[in-house]
Amino acid sequence: MRARELAVGYEAVHMDSGALAAARLMAEHRLPGLLVLDAAGEPKAILPASQMVKVLVPRYVLDDPTLASVVDEHHADRFCEALAGRTVGDCLPSSAMPPPMADADDTALEVATLMARARSPLVAVAEHTRTGADGRKHGGGAHLLGVITASHLLHVLLDAAGVAGVPEVTE
Amino acid sequence: MRARELAVGYEAVHMDSGALAAARLMAEHRLPGLLVLDAAGEPKAILPASQMVKVLVPRYVLDDPTLASVVDEHHADRFCEALAGRTVGDCLPSSAMPPPMADADDTALEVATLMARARSPLVAVAEHTRTGADGRKHGGGAHLLGVITASHLLHVLLDAAGVAGVPEVTE
Repeated sequence: MRARELAVGYEAVHMDSGALAAARLMAEHRLPGLLVLDAAGEPKAILPASQMVKVLVPRYVLDDPTLASVVDEHHADRFCEALAGRTVGDCLPSSAMPPPMADADDTALEVATLMARARSPLVAVAEHTRTGADGRKHGGGAHLLGVITASHLLHVLLDAAGVAGVPEVTE
Repeated sequence: MRARELAVGYEAVHMDSGALAAARLMAEHRLPGLLVLDAAGEPKAILPASQMVKVLVPRYVLDDPTLASVVDEHHADRFCEALAGRTVGDCLPSSAMPPPMADADDTALEVATLMARARSPLVAVAEHTRTGADGRKHGGGAHLLGVITASHLLHVLLDAAGVAGVPEVTE
Protein backbone atom coordinates (compact mmCIF):
# COMPACT_ATOMS: atom_id res chain seq x y z
CA MET A 1 0.00 0.00 0.00
CA ARG A 2 1.26 3.42 -0.98
CA ALA A 3 0.40 6.73 0.65
CA ARG A 4 -1.61 7.80 -2.42
CA GLU A 5 -4.01 4.88 -1.84
CA LEU A 6 -4.31 5.63 1.88
CA ALA A 7 -4.90 9.38 1.65
CA VAL A 8 -8.43 10.57 2.34
CA GLY A 9 -10.06 13.99 2.27
CA TYR A 10 -9.96 16.14 5.37
CA GLU A 11 -11.75 19.38 6.16
CA ALA A 12 -9.47 22.27 5.29
CA VAL A 13 -9.58 26.03 5.63
CA HIS A 14 -7.25 28.81 4.50
CA MET A 15 -5.18 31.23 6.55
CA ASP A 16 -7.55 34.05 5.60
CA SER A 17 -10.77 32.05 6.17
CA GLY A 18 -13.06 33.50 8.85
CA ALA A 19 -12.37 32.16 12.37
CA LEU A 20 -16.08 31.88 13.18
CA ALA A 21 -16.78 29.80 10.06
CA ALA A 22 -13.85 27.53 10.94
CA ALA A 23 -15.13 27.09 14.51
CA ARG A 24 -18.62 26.26 13.19
CA LEU A 25 -17.15 23.70 10.80
CA MET A 26 -15.30 21.98 13.68
CA ALA A 27 -18.38 22.12 15.91
CA GLU A 28 -20.79 20.85 13.25
CA HIS A 29 -18.69 17.87 12.23
CA ARG A 30 -17.13 17.27 15.67
CA LEU A 31 -13.64 17.56 14.20
CA PRO A 32 -10.60 17.45 16.51
CA GLY A 33 -8.88 19.88 14.16
CA LEU A 34 -8.69 21.44 10.71
CA LEU A 35 -5.97 21.44 8.12
CA VAL A 36 -4.93 25.02 7.34
CA LEU A 37 -3.72 25.72 3.81
CA ASP A 38 -1.68 28.67 2.58
CA ALA A 39 -2.51 30.73 -0.52
CA ALA A 40 -0.79 28.13 -2.71
CA GLY A 41 -2.99 25.36 -1.28
CA GLU A 42 -0.16 23.78 0.68
CA PRO A 43 -0.53 22.61 4.31
CA LYS A 44 0.56 25.38 6.62
CA ALA A 45 -0.64 24.12 10.01
CA ILE A 46 -3.08 22.00 11.98
CA LEU A 47 -5.58 24.10 13.92
CA PRO A 48 -6.74 22.01 16.91
CA ALA A 49 -10.29 22.48 18.22
CA SER A 50 -8.78 23.07 21.67
CA GLN A 51 -7.03 26.16 20.27
CA MET A 52 -10.38 27.55 19.07
CA VAL A 53 -11.79 26.93 22.56
CA LYS A 54 -8.84 28.90 23.93
CA VAL A 55 -9.58 31.81 21.59
CA LEU A 56 -13.17 31.88 22.92
CA VAL A 57 -12.16 32.09 26.58
CA PRO A 58 -11.72 35.74 27.64
CA ARG A 59 -8.10 36.70 28.32
CA TYR A 60 -8.85 37.77 31.91
CA VAL A 61 -10.27 34.30 32.63
CA LEU A 62 -7.21 32.55 31.16
CA ASP A 63 -5.06 34.76 33.38
CA ASP A 64 -7.18 34.06 36.47
CA PRO A 65 -9.16 30.80 36.08
CA THR A 66 -11.05 31.34 39.34
CA LEU A 67 -13.03 34.01 37.46
CA ALA A 68 -14.50 31.29 35.18
CA SER A 69 -16.92 30.22 37.91
CA VAL A 70 -18.34 33.71 38.38
CA VAL A 71 -18.86 34.71 34.73
CA ASP A 72 -22.54 34.43 33.81
CA GLU A 73 -22.97 31.76 31.14
CA HIS A 74 -25.68 33.80 29.50
CA HIS A 75 -22.99 36.16 28.39
CA ALA A 76 -21.53 33.41 26.25
CA ASP A 77 -22.47 35.46 23.20
CA ARG A 78 -19.74 37.88 24.23
CA PHE A 79 -17.13 35.10 24.00
CA CYS A 80 -17.91 34.53 20.35
CA GLU A 81 -17.23 38.18 19.61
CA ALA A 82 -13.62 37.06 19.99
CA LEU A 83 -13.99 35.24 16.67
CA ALA A 84 -15.84 37.95 14.73
CA GLY A 85 -13.62 39.68 12.21
CA ARG A 86 -10.68 37.39 12.93
CA THR A 87 -9.09 35.01 10.47
CA VAL A 88 -7.91 31.45 10.97
CA GLY A 89 -4.36 32.79 10.76
CA ASP A 90 -5.08 35.09 13.72
CA CYS A 91 -6.13 32.07 15.80
CA LEU A 92 -3.09 29.90 15.15
CA PRO A 93 -0.60 29.70 18.01
CA SER A 94 2.83 31.07 17.12
CA SER A 95 4.17 27.54 17.62
CA ALA A 96 1.87 26.09 14.88
CA MET A 97 3.75 23.80 12.53
CA PRO A 98 2.79 22.21 9.21
CA PRO A 99 1.88 18.53 9.52
CA PRO A 100 4.52 16.03 8.42
CA MET A 101 4.36 15.55 4.64
CA ALA A 102 4.52 12.12 3.04
CA ASP A 103 5.17 11.54 -0.62
CA ALA A 104 2.41 9.84 -2.61
CA ASP A 105 4.77 6.93 -3.32
CA ASP A 106 5.74 6.33 0.33
CA THR A 107 4.87 2.91 1.75
CA ALA A 108 2.62 2.46 4.79
CA LEU A 109 5.72 1.78 6.88
CA GLU A 110 7.37 5.01 5.67
CA VAL A 111 4.22 6.94 6.61
CA ALA A 112 4.15 5.19 10.01
CA THR A 113 7.80 6.08 10.62
CA LEU A 114 7.17 9.72 9.71
CA MET A 115 4.12 9.84 11.99
CA ALA A 116 5.90 8.10 14.88
CA ARG A 117 8.92 10.37 14.76
CA ALA A 118 6.80 13.54 14.54
CA ARG A 119 4.28 12.25 17.16
CA SER A 120 1.62 13.62 14.83
CA PRO A 121 -2.03 12.45 14.74
CA LEU A 122 -2.02 12.86 10.96
CA VAL A 123 0.27 13.03 7.97
CA ALA A 124 -0.50 15.02 4.81
CA VAL A 125 0.15 13.30 1.48
CA ALA A 126 1.31 15.24 -1.55
CA GLU A 127 2.23 14.43 -5.10
CA HIS A 128 5.41 16.32 -5.71
CA THR A 129 5.68 17.88 -9.13
CA ARG A 130 9.06 19.36 -8.30
CA THR A 131 11.68 17.46 -6.36
CA GLY A 132 14.84 18.61 -4.65
CA ALA A 133 18.38 17.38 -5.16
CA ASP A 134 17.66 14.53 -2.75
CA GLY A 135 14.76 13.46 -4.94
CA ARG A 136 11.81 14.16 -2.64
CA LYS A 137 9.70 16.06 -0.14
CA HIS A 138 10.00 19.72 -0.99
CA GLY A 139 7.32 22.34 -0.67
CA GLY A 140 7.26 24.08 -4.03
CA GLY A 141 4.77 22.66 -6.52
CA ALA A 142 3.39 19.98 -4.21
CA HIS A 143 -0.16 18.85 -4.94
CA LEU A 144 -2.07 17.83 -1.79
CA LEU A 145 -3.84 14.49 -2.17
CA GLY A 146 -5.28 14.22 1.34
CA VAL A 147 -4.29 13.05 4.79
CA ILE A 148 -3.74 9.80 6.67
CA THR A 149 -4.80 9.71 10.32
CA ALA A 150 -3.06 7.57 12.94
CA SER A 151 -6.14 5.38 13.51
CA HIS A 152 -6.54 4.78 9.76
CA LEU A 153 -2.88 3.80 9.46
CA LEU A 154 -3.24 1.51 12.47
CA HIS A 155 -6.13 -0.17 10.69
CA VAL A 156 -4.03 -0.65 7.54
CA LEU A 157 -1.06 -2.08 9.44
CA LEU A 158 -3.17 -4.46 11.56
CA ASP A 159 -5.09 -5.50 8.47
CA ALA A 160 -1.85 -6.21 6.58
CA ALA A 161 -0.77 -8.36 9.50
CA GLY A 162 -4.08 -10.20 9.42
CA VAL A 163 -4.99 -9.27 12.98
CA ALA A 164 -7.49 -6.48 12.39
CA GLY A 165 -10.27 -9.04 12.79
CA VAL A 166 -12.99 -6.46 12.41
CA PRO A 167 -15.37 -5.67 9.58
CA GLU A 168 -14.42 -2.70 7.41
CA VAL A 169 -15.81 0.42 9.04
CA THR A 170 -17.58 2.86 6.74
CA GLU A 171 -16.09 6.31 7.07
CA MET B 1 -24.76 23.99 31.24
CA ARG B 2 -22.76 21.98 33.72
CA ALA B 3 -20.00 19.48 32.95
CA ARG B 4 -22.23 16.58 34.07
CA GLU B 5 -24.67 17.41 31.26
CA LEU B 6 -21.89 17.72 28.69
CA ALA B 7 -19.98 14.54 29.52
CA VAL B 8 -20.31 11.67 27.05
CA GLY B 9 -18.94 8.14 26.99
CA TYR B 10 -15.51 7.51 25.51
CA GLU B 11 -13.74 4.27 24.73
CA ALA B 12 -11.56 3.32 27.65
CA VAL B 13 -9.05 0.58 28.42
CA HIS B 14 -7.09 -0.33 31.52
CA MET B 15 -3.36 -0.24 32.16
CA ASP B 16 -3.25 -4.04 32.04
CA SER B 17 -5.49 -4.40 28.95
CA GLY B 18 -3.81 -6.10 26.00
CA ALA B 19 -2.01 -3.71 23.64
CA LEU B 20 -3.24 -5.57 20.55
CA ALA B 21 -6.88 -5.37 21.66
CA ALA B 22 -6.46 -1.64 22.33
CA ALA B 23 -4.93 -1.10 18.88
CA ARG B 24 -7.80 -3.00 17.26
CA LEU B 25 -10.34 -0.90 19.16
CA MET B 26 -8.71 2.31 17.88
CA ALA B 27 -8.48 0.93 14.35
CA GLU B 28 -12.04 -0.38 14.26
CA HIS B 29 -13.67 2.81 15.51
CA ARG B 30 -11.11 5.18 13.96
CA LEU B 31 -10.40 6.72 17.37
CA PRO B 32 -7.66 9.34 17.71
CA GLY B 33 -6.94 7.96 21.17
CA LEU B 34 -8.17 5.96 24.14
CA LEU B 35 -8.70 6.90 27.73
CA VAL B 36 -6.56 4.69 29.99
CA LEU B 37 -7.93 3.94 33.46
CA ASP B 38 -6.04 2.67 36.49
CA ALA B 39 -7.17 -0.22 38.69
CA ALA B 40 -9.49 2.13 40.62
CA GLY B 41 -11.20 3.19 37.37
CA GLU B 42 -9.69 6.67 37.41
CA PRO B 43 -8.17 8.32 34.30
CA LYS B 44 -4.46 7.63 34.20
CA ALA B 45 -3.52 8.78 30.69
CA ILE B 46 -4.59 9.38 27.12
CA LEU B 47 -3.08 6.85 24.71
CA PRO B 48 -2.89 8.51 21.28
CA ALA B 49 -3.26 6.36 18.16
CA SER B 50 0.04 7.83 16.92
CA GLN B 51 1.76 6.26 19.93
CA MET B 52 0.40 2.83 18.95
CA VAL B 53 1.71 3.41 15.42
CA LYS B 54 5.08 4.17 16.98
CA VAL B 55 5.04 0.92 18.95
CA LEU B 56 4.42 -0.96 15.66
CA VAL B 57 7.40 0.54 13.84
CA PRO B 58 10.55 -1.54 14.44
CA ARG B 59 13.12 0.18 16.61
CA TYR B 60 15.82 -0.05 13.92
CA VAL B 61 13.55 1.82 11.50
CA LEU B 62 12.81 4.57 14.04
CA ASP B 63 16.55 4.93 14.54
CA ASP B 64 17.27 5.01 10.79
CA PRO B 65 14.13 6.05 8.84
CA THR B 66 15.79 5.44 5.47
CA LEU B 67 15.35 1.72 6.24
CA ALA B 68 11.55 2.15 6.08
CA SER B 69 11.65 2.21 2.28
CA VAL B 70 13.49 -1.10 2.01
CA VAL B 71 11.49 -3.19 4.50
CA ASP B 72 9.14 -5.53 2.65
CA GLU B 73 5.54 -4.64 3.46
CA HIS B 74 4.59 -8.28 3.39
CA HIS B 75 6.47 -8.63 6.62
CA ALA B 76 3.96 -6.34 8.29
CA ASP B 77 2.85 -9.29 10.40
CA ARG B 78 6.19 -9.05 12.16
CA PHE B 79 5.41 -5.47 13.23
CA CYS B 80 2.34 -6.59 15.09
CA GLU B 81 4.39 -9.04 17.10
CA ALA B 82 5.51 -5.88 18.90
CA LEU B 83 2.03 -5.74 20.44
CA ALA B 84 1.62 -9.40 21.35
CA GLY B 85 1.97 -10.03 25.06
CA ARG B 86 2.31 -6.34 25.85
CA THR B 87 -0.10 -4.31 27.93
CA VAL B 88 -1.45 -0.82 27.34
CA GLY B 89 0.74 0.32 30.20
CA ASP B 90 3.81 -0.95 28.32
CA CYS B 91 2.87 1.22 25.31
CA LEU B 92 2.40 4.50 27.16
CA PRO B 93 5.22 6.98 26.75
CA SER B 94 6.95 7.88 30.01
CA SER B 95 5.67 11.42 29.53
CA ALA B 96 1.99 10.29 29.52
CA MET B 97 -0.17 12.46 31.73
CA PRO B 98 -3.75 12.07 32.98
CA PRO B 99 -6.21 14.28 31.09
CA PRO B 100 -7.36 17.43 32.89
CA MET B 101 -10.24 16.61 35.27
CA ALA B 102 -13.33 18.77 35.52
CA ASP B 103 -15.82 18.54 38.35
CA ALA B 104 -19.37 17.51 37.44
CA ASP B 105 -20.62 20.90 38.65
CA ASP B 106 -18.18 22.99 36.58
CA THR B 107 -19.74 25.35 34.04
CA ALA B 108 -18.99 25.15 30.31
CA LEU B 109 -16.70 28.16 30.69
CA GLU B 110 -14.78 26.48 33.53
CA VAL B 111 -14.32 23.39 31.36
CA ALA B 112 -13.20 25.59 28.44
CA THR B 113 -10.69 27.37 30.66
CA LEU B 114 -9.30 24.06 31.93
CA MET B 115 -9.02 22.74 28.36
CA ALA B 116 -7.44 25.92 27.02
CA ARG B 117 -4.82 26.11 29.74
CA ALA B 118 -3.91 22.42 29.40
CA ARG B 119 -4.06 22.54 25.55
CA SER B 120 -5.89 19.24 25.81
CA PRO B 121 -8.25 17.82 23.16
CA LEU B 122 -10.46 16.44 25.91
CA VAL B 123 -11.34 16.87 29.56
CA ALA B 124 -12.52 14.03 31.82
CA VAL B 125 -15.49 14.75 34.07
CA ALA B 126 -15.80 13.19 37.50
CA GLU B 127 -18.22 13.36 40.35
CA HIS B 128 -16.10 13.77 43.42
CA THR B 129 -17.30 11.89 46.45
CA ARG B 130 -14.41 13.19 48.51
CA THR B 131 -13.17 16.74 48.33
CA GLY B 132 -9.99 18.37 49.52
CA ALA B 133 -9.53 21.34 51.81
CA ASP B 134 -9.99 23.61 48.79
CA GLY B 135 -13.35 22.01 48.14
CA ARG B 136 -12.70 20.27 44.81
CA LYS B 137 -10.80 18.21 42.25
CA HIS B 138 -8.97 15.50 44.11
CA GLY B 139 -8.32 12.03 42.90
CA GLY B 140 -9.47 9.77 45.70
CA GLY B 141 -13.04 8.58 45.41
CA ALA B 142 -13.75 10.27 42.08
CA HIS B 143 -16.44 8.67 39.94
CA LEU B 144 -15.80 9.12 36.20
CA LEU B 145 -18.88 10.37 34.34
CA GLY B 146 -17.35 10.68 30.87
CA VAL B 147 -15.37 13.13 28.77
CA ILE B 148 -15.91 16.38 26.89
CA THR B 149 -14.03 16.84 23.62
CA ALA B 150 -12.88 20.22 22.34
CA SER B 151 -15.17 20.08 19.30
CA HIS B 152 -18.20 19.22 21.48
CA LEU B 153 -17.43 22.10 23.81
CA LEU B 154 -17.01 24.41 20.82
CA HIS B 155 -20.49 23.36 19.69
CA VAL B 156 -21.95 24.10 23.12
CA LEU B 157 -20.30 27.53 23.35
CA LEU B 158 -21.29 28.56 19.81
CA ASP B 159 -24.79 27.26 20.41
CA ALA B 160 -25.08 29.25 23.66
CA ALA B 161 -24.03 32.32 21.72
CA GLY B 162 -26.62 31.61 19.05
CA VAL B 163 -24.09 31.38 16.25
CA ALA B 164 -23.83 27.63 15.81
CA GLY B 165 -26.38 27.87 13.03
CA VAL B 166 -26.18 24.19 12.24
CA PRO B 167 -28.55 21.32 12.90
CA GLU B 168 -27.74 19.11 15.86
CA VAL B 169 -25.34 16.43 14.69
CA THR B 170 -26.06 12.88 15.84
CA GLU B 171 -23.07 11.38 17.57
